[in-house]
Amino acid sequence: MTPVSGDPITEERRLPDAAVGRLPVYLRALTALQASGTETVSSDQLADLAGVNAAKVRKDLSHLGSYGTRGVGYAVEQLQFQIARALGLSGDLPVAIVGLGNLGRALAGYRGFAPRGFRVVALFDNDPTLVGEQVGDLLVRHAGDLEQVCADEKVAIGVVTVPVAAAQQATDRLVVAGVRSILNFAGTVVSVPESVSMRQVDLASELQILSYHQQRIATTG
Amino acid sequence: MTPVSGDPITEERRLPDAAVGRLPVYLRALTALQASGTETVSSDQLADLAGVNAAKVRKDLSHLGSYGTRGVGYAVEQLQFQIARALGLSGDLPVAIVGLGNLGRALAGYRGFAPRGFRVVALFDNDPTLVGEQVGDLLVRHAGDLEQVCADEKVAIGVVTVPVAAAQQATDRLVVAGVRSILNFAGTVVSVPESVSMRQVDLASELQILSYHQQRIATTG
Repeated sequence: MTPVSGDPITEERRLPDAAVGRLPVYLRALTALQASGTETVSSDQLADLAGVNAAKVRKDLSHLGSYGTRGVGYAVEQLQFQIARALGLSGDLPVAIVGLGNLGRALAGYRGFAPRGFRVVALFDNDPTLVGEQVGDLLVRHAGDLEQVCADEKVAIGVVTVPVAAAQQATDRLVVAGVRSILNFAGTVVSVPESVSMRQVDLASELQILSYHQQRIATTG
Repeated sequence: MTPVSGDPITEERRLPDAAVGRLPVYLRALTALQASGTETVSSDQLADLAGVNAAKVRKDLSHLGSYGTRGVGYAVEQLQFQIARALGLSGDLPVAIVGLGNLGRALAGYRGFAPRGFRVVALFDNDPTLVGEQVGDLLVRHAGDLEQVCADEKVAIGVVTVPVAAAQQATDRLVVAGVRSILNFAGTVVSVPESVSMRQVDLASELQILSYHQQRIATTG
């Protein structure tokens, strides 16, 4: 694993997790700037838009080999391209959703995915009364077909929106099907092999964190 | 603002944000341990369950004044109580949901909130065809009644699940109604006064972060 000089992917390998987490925020801000016809942006402006400090913006972007131009800032379009490349958003990444309850339906119909580089290509449920139902442009498939469909559609990311009791099984099925990135909404701890990346979105945790800030306000006046 | 010795709230004031973010994860693990009849837990076990290292667990819990007992660990029930208190989860916190599309419905019906200290007490939409519809145990109210209803129901946390174009207005309404904690799913930057805590859940960002890890796997073999 000798680093290859000049290979952008190698240079990007050591991005800290926190910086990776901020790249989508920068990208969203840059997309809004581009839409409004803005051609360059200073680290101060980008920091304001992203809600972090300017030194952090410069540090994060330096990991991508972007240093901006003194007195001018960063070229908006070029920086968009660099961040999208670092995030692997070169084309439409195929996404499968497992579990077509309200949350699964919300995600299947979410309009924010397509402009950000994702395409929902498959929906699965193991409830026979849902199989065959049309949700958006897709038909719900039986979870038993998951392996075949994920292979056919080259699914890159699996989104798990099943009830807690079914979360591990749904995740295991995605792993067996070769899906290497999983977003888990099930609000329970699910284990995956080391070769699989998993992110967990726990909606109750978000409220609990807000609750902490709420009571701090209450007690400090 | 002289710290008052022995006042637990004062001692908890300086919890770093990252530690606050891990408390719900510890609490979830402790709740599972208690449900299985486990009375004590070591920092190593808790670290495994939470997916962090044991030194971090001990550091985080020391902020709450919890140090465990050498060779025994932490008393599960007592630690649950301490974390819940630190998070302000003393009773049911009233939650309002603004926007009854699929995502709002998913959250209105989400069973994970009640056992974690939250009660959805009000649902709002400004679509007249939705107003009066029953969703779960509640009727959808008109967004014009938001201020009155939030005051009557003592809403502590507002959840914004409206389309991007309506996000700032919905947030402003909650702020005017006196809601001091807002969870925003709208996938757009929304501004609030400094006195209001806001957390943003951006579903496309989660996928973009997974995409980064996905292409790292692909390029490093």
